[in-house]
Amino acid sequence: PSNKKLLILPGDGIGPEVMREVRRVVDWMGRRRAVSFDIEEGIVGGASIDAQGTPITDETVEKAKTADAVLFGSVGGPKWDSLPFEQRPELGILRLRKDLGLFANLRPAVVLDPLVDASSLKADVVRGVDIMVVRESTGGVYFGEPRGVETMPDGKRRGFDTDVYVEDEIARVARVAFDLARKRRNKVTSVEKANVMQSGRLWRAVVGEVHKAEFADVELENMYADNCAMQLCSRPKQFDVILGNNLFGDVLSDLAAALTGSLGMLPSATLGAVDPITGKRHALYEPIHGSAPDIAGKGVANPLAQILSFAMLLRWSFGMEEDAALVETAVGKVLGGGLRTADIMQAGMARVGTTVMGEAVVRE
Amino acid sequence: PSNKKLLILPGDGIGPEVMREVRRVVDWMGRRRAVSFDIEEGIVGGASIDAQGTPITDETVEKAKTADAVLFGSVGGPKWDSLPFEQRPELGILRLRKDLGLFANLRPAVVLDPLVDASSLKADVVRGVDIMVVRESTGGVYFGEPRGVETMPDGKRRGFDTDVYVEDEIARVARVAFDLARKRRNKVTSVEKANVMQSGRLWRAVVGEVHKAEFADVELENMYADNCAMQLCSRPKQFDVILGNNLFGDVLSDLAAALTGSLGMLPSATLGAVDPITGKRHALYEPIHGSAPDIAGKGVANPLAQILSFAMLLRWSFGMEEDAALVETAVGKVLGGGLRTADIMQAGMARVGTTVMGEAVVRE
Ligand SMILES: CC(C)[C@H](C(=O)O)[C@@H](O)C(=O)O
Ligand SMILES: CC(C)[C@H](C(=O)O)[C@@H](O)C(=O)O
Repeated sequence: PSNKKLLILPGDGIGPEVMREVRRVVDWMGRRRAVSFDIEEGIVGGASIDAQGTPITDETVEKAKTADAVLFGSVGGPKWDSLPFEQRPELGILRLRKDLGLFANLRPAVVLDPLVDASSLKADVVRGVDIMVVRESTGGVYFGEPRGVETMPDGKRRGFDTDVYVEDEIARVARVAFDLARKRRNKVTSVEKANVMQSGRLWRAVVGEVHKAEFADVELENMYADNCAMQLCSRPKQFDVILGNNLFGDVLSDLAAALTGSLGMLPSATLGAVDPITGKRHALYEPIHGSAPDIAGKGVANPLAQILSFAMLLRWSFGMEEDAALVETAVGKVLGGGLRTADIMQAGMARVGTTVMGEAVVRE
Repeated sequence: PSNKKLLILPGDGIGPEVMREVRRVVDWMGRRRAVSFDIEEGIVGGASIDAQGTPITDETVEKAKTADAVLFGSVGGPKWDSLPFEQRPELGILRLRKDLGLFANLRPAVVLDPLVDASSLKADVVRGVDIMVVRESTGGVYFGEPRGVETMPDGKRRGFDTDVYVEDEIARVARVAFDLARKRRNKVTSVEKANVMQSGRLWRAVVGEVHKAEFADVELENMYADNCAMQLCSRPKQFDVILGNNLFGDVLSDLAAALTGSLGMLPSATLGAVDPITGKRHALYEPIHGSAPDIAGKGVANPLAQILSFAMLLRWSFGMEEDAALVETAVGKVLGGGLRTADIMQAGMARVGTTVMGEAVVRE
């Protein structure tokens, strides 16, 4: 038995079918690379609500804590849309982020050369775009208290949330961003609404302090979130690493992903702190795309984001650089060979379904 | 003297120079259309900080209240970036919105045919885009209490804001959106993060109730803010009216504006409630673009957004449909004739500065 413990949580919608293709890659590795993993599979989100009455069980959270890495699919769908707030499928992923302390959500938005034309933006605007969004993912308005919907004395309802950050939460995710920038093009754009929000004001101040004290060699730019959305759309190449809080990071990473035109290709990683004793860190890998209930079960979903999430996992959690590169190269070759799922289909290419795409990656 | 009282607040950066071109149009109207206005001019933002020590004086707010309409430029710039939060230029516009009860910020994003190529998106993706973003503008995280940056007992700083909505605030801005949709393509996309935020959950519920009770004939779609950012980038034509809270409305309207590629062309209106007795409503008109300090004073700024804001004002606040159309037609002709400021410059067109552009509009 290997010492690499992997927890796989396919979730809802297209999650299970794209995860099936990852299993194909894993099986191949067992046969051909003589590596194996201790794999456990669990349910989460709507699937867990249906089977266990809760979006994630304590037991599954515990399994995630003892695993070396979690490979996550996606959760949610219309079936569970009318459930009360406390029972929605999204709590599956939110609880994992929070309980495992996964505070740094890394979301690359890369335009691959063979897919330049898949973008809705002009080729010369997006060719070569390579952005990493670092999103804080255990704080801010996603978890801040107090929050709720209450009825006031006059009978009117009032809904409220608290967007809150403590300086340490800002500093640690800023360090992740600056560190990454050093290995990339050495620039961080930190995004907030410091002109309007107090938490944004603290955000800008703390990022500036961390920069000055520890990363003065990295270029730091502060940008308002509205302007960043604008700039992403009009001049995306100006960005290297974008750093944002949980909410701005959510919206801007999705925008960055969308402008590549190949959302079905994009993996992400969410990392916790490095344990000072074991040197290990909790980590979860998931595609950027959601559960896509409209195409679920039709066999047309693009499995590449999920497969590339697995490659990211191999590299970052298991240090298996060579195997990660092998998977990524295979994906590149399959695309180079002209295979396309529906979401990235272009004239002159061969349109294939989920399974054919997965098998093609294994073959390469 | 006319009974149309107009308050002009040019603000900072390119504000004064683009406003000068509006004055040219106003003067022309006085001479040729025999209409005149009671015009007062005031200072706001950084200009007001410099002259009066505050981003807006109570006196100016009072003038805005008694005016029939306010024509606003833009505020802010690096000069005032290091001022304390309570003194920043942005308070000029925020206080006007709040004190005049201007709760509905209407931000059109229209792709004009002669400017299709100015967009960073492919022509076939943006041709014909005509979106109206209705942004709530007196509530939410912009004004919610409690808010602040405090030092905790352990010496760490903590920054926090409250994103809060009462049901009436949501209902009234939803009505504006549904009303507008009826005059357009009959569809409203309401945007929130109801899967994560309690205020978003109330937002979705109240919009649904208003829809069912008063606007069942209008198509209503609920969309998460992250997905909306994505969809705006990849398939903008699906949208007619987008309705969002103060923060999502801010970011998404800027994104919608950016994808037209002609931000320097886009006006906006911010409206208050209709007074049940006088039938009047407070209203402020301003370009979507900011103060653009980097090009201020160089005579290259595009004055068309400010001129079109004035046209919007003529139509909506003064009912001067014919004059508004005259201004808009003149702008169309100037563009058709090939004049372009730097921001919308294209090959084969004639590049002109602020003044030449303003004069050309007057001539047409
Ligand atoms: C599923 C949802 C809670 C989640 C989020 O908002 O964080 C998703 O949009 C994401 O970005 O991973
Ligand atoms: C100047 C600033 C306070 C303002 C805002 O965030 O509302 C601006 O971005 C806008 O959208 O009008």
